[in-house]
Amino acid sequence: MFGAIEAGGTKFVCAVGSDPASLAVTQLPTTSPEITMADAVNFLREHSHGKLQAVGIGSFGPVDLSKSSRTFGYITSTPKIAWQNFNFIGTVHAAFDVPIGFDTDVNAAALGEARWGAAQAISDFIYLTVGTGIGGGAIVNGRVLHGLVHPEMGHIRIPHDQVRDPYRGCCPFHGDCLEGLACGPAMEERWGIPASTLPVDHPAWALEAHYLALGLANWVCTLSPKRIVLGGGVMQQQWLIPLVRSELVRLLNGYVQSIELTEKVDEYVVPAKLANRAGILGAFALAQQAYQDQQR
Amino acid sequence: MFGAIEAGGTKFVCAVGSDPASLAVTQLPTTSPEITMADAVNFLREHSHGKLQAVGIGSFGPVDLSKSSRTFGYITSTPKIAWQNFNFIGTVHAAFDVPIGFDTDVNAAALGEARWGAAQAISDFIYLTVGTGIGGGAIVNGRVLHGLVHPEMGHIRIPHDQVRDPYRGCCPFHGDCLEGLACGPAMEERWGIPASTLPVDHPAWALEAHYLALGLANWVCTLSPKRIVLGGGVMQQQWLIPLVRSELVRLLNGYVQSIELTEKVDEYVVPAKLANRAGILGAFALAQQAYQDQQR
Repeated sequence: MFGAIEAGGTKFVCAVGSDPASLAVTQLPTTSPEITMADAVNFLREHSHGKLQAVGIGSFGPVDLSKSSRTFGYITSTPKIAWQNFNFIGTVHAAFDVPIGFDTDVNAAALGEARWGAAQAISDFIYLTVGTGIGGGAIVNGRVLHGLVHPEMGHIRIPHDQVRDPYRGCCPFHGDCLEGLACGPAMEERWGIPASTLPVDHPAWALEAHYLALGLANWVCTLSPKRIVLGGGVMQQQWLIPLVRSELVRLLNGYVQSIELTEKVDEYVVPAKLANRAGILGAFALAQQAYQDQQR
Repeated sequence: MFGAIEAGGTKFVCAVGSDPASLAVTQLPTTSPEITMADAVNFLREHSHGKLQAVGIGSFGPVDLSKSSRTFGYITSTPKIAWQNFNFIGTVHAAFDVPIGFDTDVNAAALGEARWGAAQAISDFIYLTVGTGIGGGAIVNGRVLHGLVHPEMGHIRIPHDQVRDPYRGCCPFHGDCLEGLACGPAMEERWGIPASTLPVDHPAWALEAHYLALGLANWVCTLSPKRIVLGGGVMQQQWLIPLVRSELVRLLNGYVQSIELTEKVDEYVVPAKLANRAGILGAFALAQQAYQDQQR
């Protein structure tokens, strides 16, 4: 029996069970570590009946994933004051003496899509979420990419045609990076209404597809993924993915020679399958992984 | 005893030996597969005295690296007509019945720098060469990143301020992608003299550093490497790397919190150590790897 925590900036999702298809699940508001963590631990304790074998955590960040670091398993410099320098692994470990898997929320979601969603049996892929922010997780050679810290894919710089789009971008660090130009709040600030209310024939969508495709083209050239999975609130508009696909093909212009990037692009750029369950299922997968790693 | 072939567009470098510090090495012009490959095979045969245990090949591309493909080990759609659809592995295998390691020239160079150069014992890094073109190889979790095809890092799109730099870019596929704006030929076409003759106080270098740093910032956000190794002809100008470092720090603007990206950036962005030997030593490492893989 495994426990899973998806720690988001506004809510926590917690789950317990042995089968991802039949988990006990609850949601808690993200208030302070004292309150939210106590509730999360209580939920895991009540529903596991002392049989918890591992816990998986996918957390909002930035988090410290460096196993050699003094602050491994901490949320570090978040603007959420109450959660700054919060020892996430340590807190869970104090409650349950079991192996703990820990990763970013977006890496957890990527893992969820890998195990039960749109990227099953794909050794190299990207999971991208486009919503309040833009975040990406990469699986390379079958393993989550961490590197020095973890990717911050939303913050790549892309061409910004200021004649076509004079909007200056909303990223407090970079202005008009990809996230600054193409996240949900950027769409709302640019057009004056929420992205979800922009009609299908609004020019917002061609521009959005253009920016996202610039990001995808850069990741194709950098990571050479075998598939790109797109999730998040902005991607809920069904018409957006076809626009992104054709813009990606146009931008690559035949340079990377692969049928996946031309004829088969519909199978290459695909919507996420697990929708808002990707994160918690990914956290469940992290628990399974932590348990298996300990068995070795 | 291992053989190594670095197959470049204008010359082949071939090496034989058991110790990378004392290899027999030769250079051959790249003419046709019949002539160049016969000479390469002869060199390997003569200097190995029948003791060749594996051969490693780092080749110009595009190459097919997909082991399940019918054309695995081929050079595919190169503009060099004589080498189109050339069965590289098959040709070497017909001459030597030994394991063969095969990868792109830039991945081989990355491997060389990993084994004996500027990225020893670094599990996650990027090797970038800036010369006639711009190419990058990535090591992730200690293994070369291949994915669907292989990276084409030079072809990422970056912001291009056409007021500051009206040059349209020289990439036949993408115009003003990173390679189109920042490779050696782009510098020469923009400024009217070869990059190697541009003096230290020429504005060309600040612009070049800006473009390269935009690429590096995007790769930091995507791959989160633990080090970035810069090689190639354009990087021979000693003053360029310090400019790239400070521009990278400025562009990231503190968002990715790591001492490597601020105080320690001098150890993070470093020049290649093996210079023009990275490719052939990497091919030697590919031979060692192929031999070890077969022993398993």
